[in-house]
Amino acid sequence: MRKLLLNADMGESFGAWTMGMDAEVMPHVDLANVACGFHASDPDVIRMTVRLARKHGVTVGAHPAYPDMVGFGRRHMACTPEEIENLVLYQLGALAGVCRAEGLSVGYVKPHGALYNDMMRDPEILAGVMRALVAFDAELPLMVMATRDDSAVRELAERFGVTLWFEAFADRAYDGEGRLVSRREPGSVHHDQATIVDQARRIARGEPLVARDGSALILAADTLCVHGDNAESIAAIQAIRRALDEDDDGDEGNA
Amino acid sequence: MRKLLLNADMGESFGAWTMGMDAEVMPHVDLANVACGFHASDPDVIRMTVRLARKHGVTVGAHPAYPDMVGFGRRHMACTPEEIENLVLYQLGALAGVCRAEGLSVGYVKPHGALYNDMMRDPEILAGVMRALVAFDAELPLMVMATRDDSAVRELAERFGVTLWFEAFADRAYDGEGRLVSRREPGSVHHDQATIVDQARRIARGEPLVARDGSALILAADTLCVHGDNAESIAAIQAIRRALDEDDDGDEGNA
Amino acid sequence: MRKLLLNADMGESFGAWTMGMDAEVMPHVDLANVACGFHASDPDVIRMTVRLARKHGVTVGAHPAYPDMVGFGRRHMACTPEEIENLVLYQLGALAGVCRAEGLSVGYVKPHGALYNDMMRDPEILAGVMRALVAFDAELPLMVMATRDDSAVRELAERFGVTLWFEAFADRAYDGEGRLVSRREPGSVHHDQATIVDQARRIARGEPLVARDGSALILAADTLCVHGDNAESIAAIQAIRRALDEDDDGDEGNA
Amino acid sequence: MRKLLLNADMGESFGAWTMGMDAEVMPHVDLANVACGFHASDPDVIRMTVRLARKHGVTVGAHPAYPDMVGFGRRHMACTPEEIENLVLYQLGALAGVCRAEGLSVGYVKPHGALYNDMMRDPEILAGVMRALVAFDAELPLMVMATRDDSAVRELAERFGVTLWFEAFADRAYDGEGRLVSRREPGSVHHDQATIVDQARRIARGEPLVARDGSALILAADTLCVHGDNAESIAAIQAIRRALDEDDDGDEGNA
Repeated sequence: MRKLLLNADMGESFGAWTMGMDAEVMPHVDLANVACGFHASDPDVIRMTVRLARKHGVTVGAHPAYPDMVGFGRRHMACTPEEIENLVLYQLGALAGVCRAEGLSVGYVKPHGALYNDMMRDPEILAGVMRALVAFDAELPLMVMATRDDSAVRELAERFGVTLWFEAFADRAYDGEGRLVSRREPGSVHHDQATIVDQARRIARGEPLVARDGSALILAADTLCVHGDNAESIAAIQAIRRALDEDDDGDEGNA
Repeated sequence: MRKLLLNADMGESFGAWTMGMDAEVMPHVDLANVACGFHASDPDVIRMTVRLARKHGVTVGAHPAYPDMVGFGRRHMACTPEEIENLVLYQLGALAGVCRAEGLSVGYVKPHGALYNDMMRDPEILAGVMRALVAFDAELPLMVMATRDDSAVRELAERFGVTLWFEAFADRAYDGEGRLVSRREPGSVHHDQATIVDQARRIARGEPLVARDGSALILAADTLCVHGDNAESIAAIQAIRRALDEDDDGDEGNA
Repeated sequence: MRKLLLNADMGESFGAWTMGMDAEVMPHVDLANVACGFHASDPDVIRMTVRLARKHGVTVGAHPAYPDMVGFGRRHMACTPEEIENLVLYQLGALAGVCRAEGLSVGYVKPHGALYNDMMRDPEILAGVMRALVAFDAELPLMVMATRDDSAVRELAERFGVTLWFEAFADRAYDGEGRLVSRREPGSVHHDQATIVDQARRIARGEPLVARDGSALILAADTLCVHGDNAESIAAIQAIRRALDEDDDGDEGNA
Repeated sequence: MRKLLLNADMGESFGAWTMGMDAEVMPHVDLANVACGFHASDPDVIRMTVRLARKHGVTVGAHPAYPDMVGFGRRHMACTPEEIENLVLYQLGALAGVCRAEGLSVGYVKPHGALYNDMMRDPEILAGVMRALVAFDAELPLMVMATRDDSAVRELAERFGVTLWFEAFADRAYDGEGRLVSRREPGSVHHDQATIVDQARRIARGEPLVARDGSALILAADTLCVHGDNAESIAAIQAIRRALDEDDDGDEGNA
């Protein structure tokens, strides 16, 4: 069994506005998706976040987004694939510049919000994102969503020579295609910690979840997305971390 | 006699707005100061400008500025040295990201507008800029203004280990300290091409200019700032280029 | 025959960037669609544009847009109807504030770019725009696109008590439904001045155009959209103006 | 004794970022200084804040600022008086537009942050602000800081015909000129509730404070600035409110 890494969105403060509990979350995750100034963050926040990641040995990933601060990058914008290629490149470079000043480099890219959703449903947008990655550094992995059938995404990645990291969610319900049930539907978000930890463990072990339509769903995931907005969610991260570490230890014990 | 390089501000368009005649200017200059998205430019404009520079073998420099699109970076903003360090780093990284996608790298840094003026008069701001450079790449030269007495700037650069490129202006009058006479004063900007070319040649040869107060002024310059906003100014660039090249050829012939 | 008013987009400069030839266009139009700072313009440009309109006795209209300077408001953004209501209200108020300082008031509202297109195809977005208008001033007309069948738009306007001004285009081809043929298709934009003037005259007289599918198309229009980006387009505006004025004079002569 | 009104900054959230506890503060104040979208707030936040003010019968004031979201309008920007006039007008109009939709109007103007400080030290900037007010509505009061000697400000206001509302602070130490002691100095901010309430009461009664230099300082204030960022500061607002109301009641009882 491979190790399931934990990733969390970080550096989402902006100027005088604080968001997230980065200092509390950072010690418990492996990957920090750092906002790059288009939906959140600014040069000072990025610097601070990169320093925090370095302190805890956490890998820094670029979290590029549509240029929409007031909408927090959550609103679809009709950008062309070329515009997307260039805005990913710009944001990736900006973060890489700050990382370089701290003796780090960007370890992966995970598009944010509406850009993430758009790239998962539109191959032309996904291609735009991939072109940016390959042009910047052909070794840079792209984080995408694990679904039931990843073949189309894998195919495109092979064509561009892009490494994929698949991510899954421990606190969200999945539909039959292995996509997230919309937040607007009841029961789409798990709040019970035991349920969340169980789902995390199943994903880590490659065991099936039960999708919304009752079908068994196995997600091939490299990383689990976690959120740290309040004390409760940070407790959930720690519980997931412990559960996965126990499994890892057991696994190593058996080896 | 060293070769005097020509530098020009480039990539100052923004979205649907066009500024400057980059395609006409690029063939005649050595150094392109590329706006980085805080006072002008956007990811698409930067990409296009970097491609144009590559096509003409022109060195790309970062032209970072205060975050003030509507003021075009020309208005002083009371940023702290730390804020300046981080915003230079961010913009430098963003441009470097696009350069990397085009197989280039950033060759130098020239702060823009009010940030340029502020760093020339305030050593703490200059130190903030230098910290950004050194953190990103200790080899990266910083372009600063040549004045009568450069000792304070040179001293700070030595302390940080930063290479300086001094720039002079062929189309501006200088005061007794070797600073530019304010644009608001009559006679501060030369419009006559012969005057401009003569001033360029003097600077290139290390010959004295006549400052506003009548004193002789020798500027030790590595590069000359030129502007290409209209047909007339592009003709001036070409005339300067020819004059400097003739001098170079003569120089080589004598060698 | 009613008088067909000419409207043009104005105040689309931004900071150091100039767009459009407002000073040349203003004397020839009746209605100035003034950008409100979300896709173009800034407080200084708005002030200047409102002054120019006042000087020429031109009615000022609000030209609100999605918050997308770099995309010039031309890119669809997935805003909710409530967000649209509020951003229209904000922009309308901002322009009204400047108008008030110049002794004018806003005479109508014409959404810009992608927001205009979105409101023409999505009744919920149109309702959001109308709620803003009615909340601000129930007398304020809304400019919408004249199409073959305006019944749905008229119905919604009646429900909200909003007055509609229908606009048509003299320099664009129409499809069978009375919608503009996409700019990407050949022949979608007329460049020949005689064709443009003829189409303007037909619209003014209530005579049919020939739609792209060969069908006759009568557009009930209150105003004609004209553009003034260069000398040629300003000549076209003047030619349209003369043609419409001749018809008006003839009409009055017959009365 | 006149009634001392309480004013507080409101509507300082922005998009996904929340700032301030507006819902908790609003019931206890008389005047809401509403951010207008240049240093904080957005059309949705403004709408919500204006509705909250209306619900509690609180007067809405415009809180315009320099265009600097990332710096929260706290950084001096070298804007010209004309630029300041226009940006105040724009923001004032935008807020007035939203107020109008809620059946309210803007009741006064209080510039924010660096713009407030700049207008208090530079008569040309103050004149720019006043020109905007007078052009929009000559009846609109301007909130300025009460100091020991208000004569210069009063003189300018008389020249423009602007009504002034002077504000004082209950939780800040004053220097001998009646200006706020810089936050960087120890003891500049009072944290003890009894001290704060005592200072509020003295200001309300026209009794002298003890300035930092030991001198007696009487501030002629119309309003007291309070802040509601956390539970403690809201408790302080309530304590001030009770103290002032008791005084008012006593006053009325004696009448």
